[in-house]
Amino acid sequence: SVNPDLASERQTASFCVEKLTALLDGGAEQTRIRRAVVEAIQSDPVFSRENQYFETQNERYEAAVRKAVHLQKKMHEMGWTENGPEYKYIYRALSGDIAFLLHRVFMRSISVLGSDKQIAKWIPLATQLQLIGSYAQTELGHGTYLQGLETTAVFDIATQEFILNTPKISAMKWWPGDMGRSATHTVVFAQLYIHGKCYGIHPFIVQIRSLQDHSLCPGITAGDIGPKMNFEAIDNGYLMLKNVHIPRENMLSKFCEVRPDGTYVRQGSQKINYFTMTALRISLISDEVLTPLMKACTIAIRYSVVRRQSKLKPGEQEAKILDYQTQQEKLLPQLAAAYAFHFINHYLQELFDGGYREIQRKNFDMLPELHALSSGFKAVITHHCTAAVEICLRACGGHGYSLLSGLPSLYTKILASCIYEGENTILLLQTARFLIKCFMAASAGQPVPPSVTYLAAVKAGKCPAKNKSDFLSPDIYTEAYQHVALRLISSTAAKLQDLIQSGAKKYDAWNQCTVQLVQAAKAHCHYITVKNFAETVEKLETKAGIQRIMKHLCDLFALHGIFSNTGAFLHDGYISAAQMDMVTASYLDLLSVIRKDAVPLVDAFDFTDKSLNSALGSYDGQVYQRLYEWAQKSPTNKMSPAYEKYLKPLLHNTLSKL
Amino acid sequence: SVNPDLASERQTASFCVEKLTALLDGGAEQTRIRRAVVEAIQSDPVFSRENQYFETQNERYEAAVRKAVHLQKKMHEMGWTENGPEYKYIYRALSGDIAFLLHRVFMRSISVLGSDKQIAKWIPLATQLQLIGSYAQTELGHGTYLQGLETTAVFDIATQEFILNTPKISAMKWWPGDMGRSATHTVVFAQLYIHGKCYGIHPFIVQIRSLQDHSLCPGITAGDIGPKMNFEAIDNGYLMLKNVHIPRENMLSKFCEVRPDGTYVRQGSQKINYFTMTALRISLISDEVLTPLMKACTIAIRYSVVRRQSKLKPGEQEAKILDYQTQQEKLLPQLAAAYAFHFINHYLQELFDGGYREIQRKNFDMLPELHALSSGFKAVITHHCTAAVEICLRACGGHGYSLLSGLPSLYTKILASCIYEGENTILLLQTARFLIKCFMAASAGQPVPPSVTYLAAVKAGKCPAKNKSDFLSPDIYTEAYQHVALRLISSTAAKLQDLIQSGAKKYDAWNQCTVQLVQAAKAHCHYITVKNFAETVEKLETKAGIQRIMKHLCDLFALHGIFSNTGAFLHDGYISAAQMDMVTASYLDLLSVIRKDAVPLVDAFDFTDKSLNSALGSYDGQVYQRLYEWAQKSPTNKMSPAYEKYLKPLLHNTLSKL
Repeated sequence: SVNPDLASERQTASFCVEKLTALLDGGAEQTRIRRAVVEAIQSDPVFSRENQYFETQNERYEAAVRKAVHLQKKMHEMGWTENGPEYKYIYRALSGDIAFLLHRVFMRSISVLGSDKQIAKWIPLATQLQLIGSYAQTELGHGTYLQGLETTAVFDIATQEFILNTPKISAMKWWPGDMGRSATHTVVFAQLYIHGKCYGIHPFIVQIRSLQDHSLCPGITAGDIGPKMNFEAIDNGYLMLKNVHIPRENMLSKFCEVRPDGTYVRQGSQKINYFTMTALRISLISDEVLTPLMKACTIAIRYSVVRRQSKLKPGEQEAKILDYQTQQEKLLPQLAAAYAFHFINHYLQELFDGGYREIQRKNFDMLPELHALSSGFKAVITHHCTAAVEICLRACGGHGYSLLSGLPSLYTKILASCIYEGENTILLLQTARFLIKCFMAASAGQPVPPSVTYLAAVKAGKCPAKNKSDFLSPDIYTEAYQHVALRLISSTAAKLQDLIQSGAKKYDAWNQCTVQLVQAAKAHCHYITVKNFAETVEKLETKAGIQRIMKHLCDLFALHGIFSNTGAFLHDGYISAAQMDMVTASYLDLLSVIRKDAVPLVDAFDFTDKSLNSALGSYDGQVYQRLYEWAQKSPTNKMSPAYEKYLKPLLHNTLSKL
Repeated sequence: SVNPDLASERQTASFCVEKLTALLDGGAEQTRIRRAVVEAIQSDPVFSRENQYFETQNERYEAAVRKAVHLQKKMHEMGWTENGPEYKYIYRALSGDIAFLLHRVFMRSISVLGSDKQIAKWIPLATQLQLIGSYAQTELGHGTYLQGLETTAVFDIATQEFILNTPKISAMKWWPGDMGRSATHTVVFAQLYIHGKCYGIHPFIVQIRSLQDHSLCPGITAGDIGPKMNFEAIDNGYLMLKNVHIPRENMLSKFCEVRPDGTYVRQGSQKINYFTMTALRISLISDEVLTPLMKACTIAIRYSVVRRQSKLKPGEQEAKILDYQTQQEKLLPQLAAAYAFHFINHYLQELFDGGYREIQRKNFDMLPELHALSSGFKAVITHHCTAAVEICLRACGGHGYSLLSGLPSLYTKILASCIYEGENTILLLQTARFLIKCFMAASAGQPVPPSVTYLAAVKAGKCPAKNKSDFLSPDIYTEAYQHVALRLISSTAAKLQDLIQSGAKKYDAWNQCTVQLVQAAKAHCHYITVKNFAETVEKLETKAGIQRIMKHLCDLFALHGIFSNTGAFLHDGYISAAQMDMVTASYLDLLSVIRKDAVPLVDAFDFTDKSLNSALGSYDGQVYQRLYEWAQKSPTNKMSPAYEKYLKPLLHNTLSKL
């Protein structure tokens, strides 16, 4: 039975939830396929996550391997293939606790960087999991700056081998998943040396564990890096190499080859490879960033209509906490952000698909823009969604702090997305470099890529809004975002030039502008997100109430961004103080409008209870019952392990004294 | 040997680190006492935390009990008493992983709420740990709003007993520490009923476990609530009561008593008790909030001068990451905040000590102000410090994400401080209610408490700063903060009145203003923090370079607050756009000034390596060595537990195919 406080929220939905789900999925047929995958996975007890919050790192790891092995069987049983329509839903349905993700990166590296012969040798075995691969790039002392990697691979003509070494502790490979305990092989990135000359970073296939008994190979030191904030299921590992010999054929040689005589040959263009890496940043957004935020919103919003606390109106019963303006102001902007980023992600996916087609035709013109967009949006979306999940967690008070709410795990996992695949600050500075370059070009009348044409059109102007309802006009707020992005880019470009003109070295001037460059890059991405949301809403079908509610969310997302960052809009008077008061009024009004549809809006994300794995977020809203039932299963619900040794000696005489 | 990259940072300190440590401690003698306590605790292997990051919840709990029992012995050995000067350093030296903290709250409740007879009966036993107490207030469905608690205690004249029940699942006690597995007794808060009439919430001593074998008493269901985001060492528990009979004498009866005939008698003033609860919020700031932030700053800043990444200047070696402006902008404001909050905490402690003296003289005039200050500052400081610890964590990239950095545990623990002892939003609204009331009084020419006299002096004015160095004048920025606080309070008061005048119900109008009321309360606390920091700096001795560096930190704290919230200052033009550019310039200049002293400024916090328990933060800066050595000890560094069952069957035939 559904908690009546939750049931009543569903009765008054202003739109058709099923239609919105289909919109999010990209069509009703996709919804059908997704549900079938979710059903098949979640009804299989091997994939159960019910004990996840009680398990140790060792148990989580073992379960992840078990699931990965079972998944192969399952896919075969179900007739799912890597190219089938079901494939993209599998990982989401599993909710991530599965091994051999880096094994896939291992396979992709070989497919992309290996010669045909190498692909023919390794890929069939890897596909069958007859070897387990990893991807050893990051070192203890080196992350983002790949040129700084210290691992070496020295070519020995005499033996036709490469000799690999991690010469210092900072050169030790550190973090690769599947490497700590599972992998038999890995792709090692190392500085290539031939005849004492360094040719830079290249990839090498290295066997690290015996195929007979899984013991470490000669010269190899490897193990697990220990506990992390999340990812207990993954055996992130370390790897030291001491004079490890591998055959010449093990250098991945699609683009670069070392001939038997030691001649180094470069062939073909690595740009497709570069593009693949760039696209990776976009591909992770959906499962690793948006899904967690959507789950967090579902949990927090359902809980907020079931939880009653204090009285809003004297004499009435305690109020649903979602009826408090402060709670709405915490949660509803995060819900709007989930939709905003869903739509921008869709836009980016299409852009990258188009980019891929162009690149295959050897047209590389779009690369700088795509790189800037993928860097900036990866940073902005991961940052925003991480903050949003944290807000959801805190908004659930004490119960949000229990692992059984599901929120702590969502938070500690999404947080990592701000760091991996490019640390966010560094990525934003790459976007900023592109923006400054384009701004200079635009100022000089040169053509610029489509996403930054607005840089050419410096307008003085003021915001034309006359009353609070004007701020519900997408033209008004999109223009305001554009104005701010342009102002931040142009003013930082000016500061940069001023510094250089007054004698600062270029790199020093750049460093002195980086705080502002980061702001400019964020403003650019924020502007594009708002613009894309508004354009998406414009194109939606008007029936079934979908367009109306999406318009409200778009308005809320846009006005929340202004309300939370008023200074950027007030600075040059583009928005006046009186107009800012209108923004605030419109923004606060919207909260109570969207509050009415809050539950249907999260229902549309269509998570099953097993997907959420949360005592607070279940579809039936029986929060307290679930917390209690679940807690009873905790391994801490046994007799105190401290009793015999520590408590009994203290207590054994008390009875006589009471 | 100290990492030379860290050693060089210490050689150029502009001030005497030891003198600053003494200032933070409140004198060199205090430093000496603190160090002696730290040394005694940390040299005792029973108190070791070295394996903490590897332990399960069960192991953490058991260790915490062991430490609590051992501490009693240790205190006796060392001659430390609860009233001695060492006492306040013990908990900090232990870094929190110790049981029986709620047992202390149990004792305090009896001391404060119990009759002399009750104190005489229970306190000696509790002091000797001959019983273990807890404090059962919060229920599954009820937190902040105490009147909503559902547990009942019905007086039965016939038997002279109270009969306690948790009539619904939402009435189940939930969260009390030490209750899940350890406690034999607890103070239960329940609605008192006599002859069918409800007299509201009262405290009752209830035995929950047998003193003979620790089994649950009749009518009691209790256990552990399971895994949380942190506090693994604590057995937060649940408790259901089904017709549990306790003698009449077990109602704590200093202020209220039930006579044998069922007469309810109220005696004395509960205001001292009320004050004690208010003061609790301030007392937790030092150990639970400031210490974690200071640790996080120490870890992140030391790491940032040891970690080198990318090149700042072409041709040079990779740069220390603290030399990047963006890294400075992440960490140095958090360092400044640690000092700012240290000084405001000192101010609040003194204020509350004074308040306590007044209240003992039956002068309760200060109570509303103290309540408002304790609520607001608890919320503002916990919120700010939690965000700051998170920034420190993220600023350390991948290594910050390892539990071995110490940062994840600091973060997941400090986060709880935003929720416990009053959820922050609710507390800020209590402060706001006080501010609105005072603003109305001040507007009507009535006297107001000292901390809010500025509300009487509405000045139009503009910020008089003419160049960027003017923003290094405490008068200039303190005035700006005051202006913003006053503007937000007065404009929200006006909105509130407008709503009421246009017919809104009072409670509804209040709810519609709460987002802005929260902003106003924060601005008030921020203003007082800045003002107090500036006044503290003013009074410091000028020698040894301490005042100079504290002045820089005060400026940084103040300007960071403006830079991060420009809209509040720009809104009515108090600070103009041109002036805001000066703020930005001054702020960014300060970063490179303070960067030079960053390591000495964290060294002054004087944490030992054992206190930090961090591979990144150790005094010698041998980060990579420590990460590697420590990771090797992880229980995950054994043969893969998945090998025999899952990996071997996959791999056993591969050799023949390669």
